[in-house]
Order: sequence, then structure tokens, then C-alpha cells
Amino acid sequence: MNDQYMDVKPSNIKPPYAGAKAVVLLSGGMDSTTLLYNVLSNGYKAHALGFDYGQRHLKELAAAQKIATKARTPFKLISLASVHDNILSHAGSSQTNESVRVPHGRYDDESMKQTVVPNRNMMMLSIATSYAIVLKADIVAYAAHHGDHAIYPDCRHEFMESIHATMRICDWHPVSLYAPFREMRKENIAHHGKALGVPFDLTWSCYEGNDIHCGRCGTCVERKEAFVLSDVPDPTEYAA
Amino acid sequence: MNDQYMDVKPSNIKPPYAGAKAVVLLSGGMDSTTLLYNVLSNGYKAHALGFDYGQRHLKELAAAQKIATKARTPFKLISLASVHDNILSHAGSSQTNESVRVPHGRYDDESMKQTVVPNRNMMMLSIATSYAIVLKADIVAYAAHHGDHAIYPDCRHEFMESIHATMRICDWHPVSLYAPFREMRKENIAHHGKALGVPFDLTWSCYEGNDIHCGRCGTCVERKEAFVLSDVPDPTEYAA
Repeated sequence: MNDQYMDVKPSNIKPPYAGAKAVVLLSGGMDSTTLLYNVLSNGYKAHALGFDYGQRHLKELAAAQKIATKARTPFKLISLASVHDNILSHAGSSQTNESVRVPHGRYDDESMKQTVVPNRNMMMLSIATSYAIVLKADIVAYAAHHGDHAIYPDCRHEFMESIHATMRICDWHPVSLYAPFREMRKENIAHHGKALGVPFDLTWSCYEGNDIHCGRCGTCVERKEAFVLSDVPDPTEYAA
Repeated sequence: MNDQYMDVKPSNIKPPYAGAKAVVLLSGGMDSTTLLYNVLSNGYKAHALGFDYGQRHLKELAAAQKIATKARTPFKLISLASVHDNILSHAGSSQTNESVRVPHGRYDDESMKQTVVPNRNMMMLSIATSYAIVLKADIVAYAAHHGDHAIYPDCRHEFMESIHATMRICDWHPVSLYAPFREMRKENIAHHGKALGVPFDLTWSCYEGNDIHCGRCGTCVERKEAFVLSDVPDPTEYAA
């Protein structure tokens, strides 16, 4: 197992050669946007990938498209409509099942478990790896961070190490998982993003699909807190 | 890592409790059909899953539907059209890129590498695992066999062990990979299938999409050989 990409700090990843490519999972939130800028600042040619898996609203994907355009990065949107209709819509997740309410409160509360989309990250990383193989890209960049561990099983260390190992051997062209934020708190990511010039005003976090961030759902609470704790100015308009 | 399902022989897998469920990747070929009958004969409630990833023709999926109906097993077809259009159609695979010819000859020839669909199995197994999590199924059954190793990186032992480990921890509900044919030759699978009463006449192997099996592509050559070597009557009509 090649651990070079699992062990790096966010600022010291070096592409193995000029023109090396990276596939970046871009959701349109502040973490994956910061990751895109991190990858670009390190000298990689980035290819961003977004996923429509039937999430409650598509505001985050519209944000991802705008961010990719601003960062002059090609963006592809993969529709998993059939996976949603046949599988995910039957899960008890507030993100893919309209009859389940979005929970409000803190991100690490037990109640947030109902926002888990079963095996979402393994599916997205598998498809991103396929894209990396076709592009001959060396890494798939993925912005899971420390705050995700408690709720999301597919953001845990052991999951990331295991899927990294699988990605290295699923094809004759090895692909590495680059997950530099996995030990960082969201406020550190905000701080890192500010230094990279990330357009936070273009990013979208809210689980609700209103015109502006609701300010009450788990990701809104987490977003607000990250800006406050990092002392980075928050450009977001919140309803509450 | 729980190895119980990686270590079993085809005939001795026992469901952990009455009514235990299995997701079966069913392509409509003779291996995955035999696997479905194996899983059923072991007492699992099976849920079959097929994938349309833009393969050259859909004859195998029509076969899968017929087989599932005969086996009284629910069958879901997942469309990966968007993955095909955005990613796989750009790969140099004869299976997803119309401009690449289907190679003829033996299955383990170097030329067969152009039938590799990049990371197809990791994608399919990830989605099947999501389905297993939603169903609370214990296993995902997958019919990779010994003859696949040389050509397909995602049929190798190390790949299967690695993705099994990933599937065990990608959710709070652990899922195991059941791949009992991975050390078997195709003729042994034919023999095993005959004992289980598999309707081989309903199965489809050919990479070409004609009315009957071409008899010349890699999978046709392999299919013919399996019946001959196992001394199982071959119900297939071949063009050559």
C-alpha cells in the first residue's frame, strides 16, 4: 500500500510530475471548495466531479458549477438518478427521502445520523476512481474532515485507509486517495481556505433548499461556527 | 476483518439466521446465474441487481431479467447512463466505446485487456453494498472466477479482499463480499450449476449483440470450453 497521499499535510503535497492530474469531489460546500484550491495551488491540473444522487435540492451543485468556472476547472455532473430511485429513496435518510425531515441542531448529535446516505462516499469515490483511471490522474481528492467522524461511517479513518488500498489495486493504473483534511477541524479548513483565496461567498452548505442558508440545520450551525472560530469573515446570509 | 464469507467453499455457506438476505450481482451470464442458484440453495432470500453501464448491447440484461423471474427473485436494473456518457465512453474499452472492436480469441489473451471497463466492479459492488445496507442484507454475492484474474485487475484476489474489508466498514451495518467462485475454473462452475439445476439455456455470454452467440469472442470461446470440459450439455446455439 502506497501511503504517500494518506500521510501528507494539506500544504505539502507535490505532484509527481508537471501536468499531473487530480480528480476532485466537489459538492459546492466550503470544505471541497477549499480542497479544490489546495489541489490547484499545489500544481495539479484538476478535474472536478459533482454528484446528483437525488439530494433534497440542487443548490449545492449549482454552487459547485460556479466555483469550478471561477477556478477554471472542468466540472462534470454525474447523475445517480437510477441509484436514487431504486435504492437510496428507500433508505431512511433525510437527504434522499422526502418524507424524512432535515434535523436541526448540532452536527455531531445522534439525530444527525438520519442525514447519512447509505454508502454514498464509497459510490462516489468508486466513480471518481473510474474517472481518474480514464484521465490517468494520480489522485482523487476528498474533503472529509475531523468533524464528520462521529456521524458518518464513511468518513472514518479506517474507511479511508481501506478504500485507499482498494483504489490502488482496482486497475493496472493505481489511484491514491488524497484526504488532507481528515484530521482537521472545519475552522482550520476555513483558515486554510482564506489563505488560498477561496471564494466562500460562492459556497453552499445548507441542507434545506431555500434562497439563503437557513442557519439552523446541522451544516449551517457548523458553517457559522467555523467562520467564528477561525476569525475568517463570514460572507453568508442566514435566515436565522 | 470478518473473513467468514471470503473463506467458504461454494456449497457450505450458511445464512446466519432464517430469512437472511443476499444481494446478487446478476449479469445474465452462466457464472452469476449459478451464483444466484447457489445463494438460493443455501437458504438466503436473494435480491438481484443488474447494471446498464452502456455496454455494447443489453441482451445479457434481458437474460438476467428472465432468469430472475424464473428463480422468483426480485430484480432491479440500475442505469449508469450518466457514468457511461461522462466517463466510460471516453475509455478505450470495447465494451463501452463503440469505436473499439470486440476482440476475438482466447479470454486470457493480452488482447482481451481492451474489454476491461475501468473500475466497473468497484462501482457495481459499491452500489450493491448500498442496496445491501438499505435491505439489511448480510452479503453481496459476486461471481468473479479464476479465469478472470489474468485480464481483469478488479477480479484479482487482492482486490476482492481489499473491497471486502472496505464493505465491512463503510456503514454501521457491515456487509460481506461472498465470492465463492474466485478460485474455481469456469468448467467447475458449469458442473456446480448443473447440480443446482441452473437454466443455462436462459443465460447469455456473448460480447457481440446478435440473435445468437457468435462463438468467436472471448466469452463465447470460454463458454464453449466450460461446457466441453465439464461434460455438461451445452444448450447454446453458436454462429461459429
